[in-house]
Amino acid sequence: MQAEVGDKVRVESKGMQYEGILMPSQTRSIVLKLKNGYNIGIRQESASVTLLEKKEENKIHKPISEPIKIKKEKLPNISILSTGGTIASKIDYRTGAVTSQFSAEDILRAIPELEDIANYNCRMIYSILSENMRPSYWSELARAVYEEIKNGADGIIVTHGTDTMMYTAAALSFMVETPVPIVLVGSQRSADRPSSDNAMNAVCAATVAASDIAEVCVVMHGSTSDDFCTIHRGTKVRKMHTSRRDAFQSINAKPIGRVEYPSREIKMLSGYVKRGEKKLALHDKLEPKCALIKYATGASSESLLFHSGSGYKGIVIEGTGLGHVSTEWIPHIKNAVEAGIPVVMTSQCIYGRVCDRVYDTGRDILKAGAIEGEDILPEVALVKLMWALGQAADIEKVREIMRTGIAGEITRSTCI
Amino acid sequence: MQAEVGDKVRVESKGMQYEGILMPSQTRSIVLKLKNGYNIGIRQESASVTLLEKKEENKIHKPISEPIKIKKEKLPNISILSTGGTIASKIDYRTGAVTSQFSAEDILRAIPELEDIANYNCRMIYSILSENMRPSYWSELARAVYEEIKNGADGIIVTHGTDTMMYTAAALSFMVETPVPIVLVGSQRSADRPSSDNAMNAVCAATVAASDIAEVCVVMHGSTSDDFCTIHRGTKVRKMHTSRRDAFQSINAKPIGRVEYPSREIKMLSGYVKRGEKKLALHDKLEPKCALIKYATGASSESLLFHSGSGYKGIVIEGTGLGHVSTEWIPHIKNAVEAGIPVVMTSQCIYGRVCDRVYDTGRDILKAGAIEGEDILPEVALVKLMWALGQAADIEKVREIMRTGIAGEITRSTCI
Repeated sequence: MQAEVGDKVRVESKGMQYEGILMPSQTRSIVLKLKNGYNIGIRQESASVTLLEKKEENKIHKPISEPIKIKKEKLPNISILSTGGTIASKIDYRTGAVTSQFSAEDILRAIPELEDIANYNCRMIYSILSENMRPSYWSELARAVYEEIKNGADGIIVTHGTDTMMYTAAALSFMVETPVPIVLVGSQRSADRPSSDNAMNAVCAATVAASDIAEVCVVMHGSTSDDFCTIHRGTKVRKMHTSRRDAFQSINAKPIGRVEYPSREIKMLSGYVKRGEKKLALHDKLEPKCALIKYATGASSESLLFHSGSGYKGIVIEGTGLGHVSTEWIPHIKNAVEAGIPVVMTSQCIYGRVCDRVYDTGRDILKAGAIEGEDILPEVALVKLMWALGQAADIEKVREIMRTGIAGEITRSTCI
Repeated sequence: MQAEVGDKVRVESKGMQYEGILMPSQTRSIVLKLKNGYNIGIRQESASVTLLEKKEENKIHKPISEPIKIKKEKLPNISILSTGGTIASKIDYRTGAVTSQFSAEDILRAIPELEDIANYNCRMIYSILSENMRPSYWSELARAVYEEIKNGADGIIVTHGTDTMMYTAAALSFMVETPVPIVLVGSQRSADRPSSDNAMNAVCAATVAASDIAEVCVVMHGSTSDDFCTIHRGTKVRKMHTSRRDAFQSINAKPIGRVEYPSREIKMLSGYVKRGEKKLALHDKLEPKCALIKYATGASSESLLFHSGSGYKGIVIEGTGLGHVSTEWIPHIKNAVEAGIPVVMTSQCIYGRVCDRVYDTGRDILKAGAIEGEDILPEVALVKLMWALGQAADIEKVREIMRTGIAGEITRSTCI
């Protein structure tokens, strides 16, 4: 009898013996949860596995290697659109590094817990690491999401590399008006690592995709323990750590809610758009030729000049504090705006709100025609500016769009 | 008898009466702490003040309007170098905005509590808002700090705008080896505002400047209450909120300690360099022509090409996640490095460590010759790169300096 996920097993490898519960793994490593609660990974090639005790439900359950085909009538239909990233990655034994190679089907086969939540329709859209995402791909992805919903999907999961997940989440937030949940999910640790977050993140993502929350959101580990995932609004989330599993944080807003694990109970933390409240609509046009320029002490205005003189259609500045740059930059902001290039001011503080009405510098920046970015994240402001320029060519109309909350990206408040 | 800070007073203005404790204020507003703990500001022009009860120690204390001249032999000698910023600002009644106009002497006169801590020697170095700071000013400031210490100062306070305080703190950290404390302080709310943090921040800064902590540090509010200031290491601190008083946070390191308020008791939170451990030395040379380029989804390598082709001597990239950019950028990184321009990779996650050995993209970036920025903040990496290029022209020597901890900017650890 074959050992399955959940069974108690003994693994022998290189003279060592390990006993524990067999955990999901998409790679050639066997992952075991030991008695002390710690997970270890053991290379399959050198290991022999002895089944000690079947998990109760596995006794009647089909083995994980069988294809998953049975459609359960009572469960919602979720479309998984795979774009790549760590959640769909495995070790490349040639270089020792992690590459994206798994399809959505593979994920499903590796995480049997998903089966209780929904029926799945899987589509591989891209197989890239997310640093290679492009604005034109956002449009394609938005169209794929739109089609799935139009064809009856009750919820969408987009698997995505974590590096630029926030950019894609923002793009989908602006591009798709949705009557169903659209959930981006990834993992910070690849599946072959014992501390991988991919199985739990996927289960929580499916739970949200089957829920009442009809928004574009990011669902990722909420703590360094495996106790809950946080549901972040797609326009208010940022990757705030290079490696921690709870790297994603809601900024300048409360998260929408959380998914307890393993109970899969959803707890709401703020208001949200409910299933069916909005009609499906697609606004997939954007202007990719926009730049995000970060101001640092002593940064010359050359970079601003370069971009405004090289065909860029919009510029987001990541200024200091309440939204400042050195005085030397201000005439060049004015020139850009007068040439029809919208300039949006955001803050490298990340937290808080831009307010250019407190200090002289700020007031001069406003006079030069810059648009205050409110409490929008700089990265989200860039995505929104690309999108706004796709919706309207006129700079005043773009200004109006930037100042209007489209997908929860602005928390309304006065700045002083 | 004149009312002084600490006295209980009644203020009548525009038909309203307020009773409370008179608080420090450097502007034409009277600041009162009300019974409920909340502070209010009342314009002096329209107010009449009645003294209700002298604060016990004020009964023998000189009035605050008298010049502070008496040198107390037992107290340490602290030099206050003023550069401007909100802590030295007042409302410009012409524009309604805040401008820097106060000298160090004014600050001292307004905050009598400082007198118990030290004798002060005040020098106005600049009077600018900190977004107008420049790398060449760091060198001048470092020389001024060096001279003060050489001339016997037991501690240094640098008053500075908060916007770019972290950049200057990092610069001084690399430029000055110091046997005494060098403390940067500012305020997030100008002195005319009832919620101003300037008086408490200044008192805590003076406490640290008179202490045993011989490091460059930033001392600012540690919470939104007036209960303690945090002592941050100059290379590990970042302004993380546009407006909150506790905007400054230590990143990827514990703070050095905290100053309880009003007790002025210092509590250490991590190891530190003690007074007299290091000999005074100045390394004020730097190469200002360096750029910080932030990568965003879809960012073309044009900006990298522009900088490496326009005489820039060093480039810091703020990549995604563990330190990534799109594959398209990698040959241009290689070209820059081969042309003798060091390229340092940092992460826009802010928290965590760059590690380019996990994913294919990262390994290719390393092969192209980029320097992993470890857990250094992107802004600090920029300052350090300018400084490293001032110490050595050879790219291999610069690489070695960047990989060596100079002033606590690197927390040693393996990345995978």
